[in-house]
Amino acid sequence: MISKTDIDLAHRLAEVARAEIRPLFRSGLDSEAKADASPVTLADRNAEAAMRKLIEAECSADGIHGEEYGVKEGVSGRQWVLDPIDGTTAFLAGRPIFGTLIALLVDGFPVLGIIDQPILGERWVGVAGRQTTFNGKPVRTRPCPELDRATIATTGPHYFTVAQGDAFMALAGQTDHKRMVMGGDCYNYGCLASGQIDIVAEAGLKLHDYAALVPVVEGAGGVMSDWRGEPLHAGSDGTVIALGDPARLEDVVEVLG
Amino acid sequence: MISKTDIDLAHRLAEVARAEIRPLFRSGLDSEAKADASPVTLADRNAEAAMRKLIEAECSADGIHGEEYGVKEGVSGRQWVLDPIDGTTAFLAGRPIFGTLIALLVDGFPVLGIIDQPILGERWVGVAGRQTTFNGKPVRTRPCPELDRATIATTGPHYFTVAQGDAFMALAGQTDHKRMVMGGDCYNYGCLASGQIDIVAEAGLKLHDYAALVPVVEGAGGVMSDWRGEPLHAGSDGTVIALGDPARLEDVVEVLG
Repeated sequence: MISKTDIDLAHRLAEVARAEIRPLFRSGLDSEAKADASPVTLADRNAEAAMRKLIEAECSADGIHGEEYGVKEGVSGRQWVLDPIDGTTAFLAGRPIFGTLIALLVDGFPVLGIIDQPILGERWVGVAGRQTTFNGKPVRTRPCPELDRATIATTGPHYFTVAQGDAFMALAGQTDHKRMVMGGDCYNYGCLASGQIDIVAEAGLKLHDYAALVPVVEGAGGVMSDWRGEPLHAGSDGTVIALGDPARLEDVVEVLG
Repeated sequence: MISKTDIDLAHRLAEVARAEIRPLFRSGLDSEAKADASPVTLADRNAEAAMRKLIEAECSADGIHGEEYGVKEGVSGRQWVLDPIDGTTAFLAGRPIFGTLIALLVDGFPVLGIIDQPILGERWVGVAGRQTTFNGKPVRTRPCPELDRATIATTGPHYFTVAQGDAFMALAGQTDHKRMVMGGDCYNYGCLASGQIDIVAEAGLKLHDYAALVPVVEGAGGVMSDWRGEPLHAGSDGTVIALGDPARLEDVVEVLG
């Protein structure tokens, strides 16, 4: 379903985004405010514009869904979903654990995903039916036989509603919570794919935040779902679970769902 | 007060710690549990042992206070305070935003501090009376004329008592909380010294967690104190404020103190 040409294009999208983002990291430039008051940078817009230009030149029949410039309908049943800087707050704070997210959806389901860290030169690539790679080398999630040995991550409690925060804390309390890490956005899912983190749970995510993560995590042996255990797709509700060990899905959904 | 020889030694301490830590990052090795159940790695112990060896060889009259191997009393009135891996949870999660902390205290007050990120090869150096440097180049904090424009950071709410968490959230609510970042340990203080973050507030820190931060932050134009606004020293209570703009200290202490 996913051709070598598609994978090559995805890599080139990550490269053009890197070229726009790198010079602006820690550059001291101020940022503008969006309607929802979340920060956005020149890097965000320039990177998305560069990626859209490449897709339009090479795959004009495909749709594009970008965080910054919205939706361009396609006619192929395929849609590129782009988040040039996932973790804008980390970018602005000078912390190189944000990422560029690139996904290809077919009929609404993600089949190719890239998490690219432009400053560190790190790239996770997931393709349906293939082993996920990190900088070209295969990676896999680690087993997690017991929930109380799990390392859990989330970007921050301030992204949850009160009820979601309570559910998250109930789950965190059943894990090895001394190892819990906060912050990190998409980077945590890469670490999970590499076998360093066992659980990521978030809420309020949009399609461009989670689409690329699914092939990366699942191609490394993990599983992703919403908080009810349903597979993620273009119409999901924004609650997200990533598990390194799919055997823990039932336990986690029981607490969060 | 601080000689070139001291600064050179501090750099070499960071180098020997890097050499121990780098091969173990994302190595898949398991970690042991300490009495307080916080994770500790081989890297932590090896790096501290290497640093202590160097100090004992070159400054045998100085005291040493290390996270892993405790206190060696000195006779010079000087004490090296070492935290080989500040942010062990980040290290274990595969996130390169932990740091090696090296401080030199004279009569209990920190006068030299290093925050070193071994994986990224990043080093902030602060010396009393000098401009802080990042990889050899001078850095400074940014002005923050209004609290509601401030970016605030903390490692995670799970490190606060309930009362401290309430106070932190009250402060965060007065900042630009859409830009709040979590996670990061010592790395946030480096970002603050580089003018990317305005406020870091934490609690429950030990001497080895905060000693090195003071010269870095203050040499960049910022200020550090406990939550009552008192200067940090060997006997502080573990509450810590770092501000890029000292003019905001009164506002912040009013909320946290």
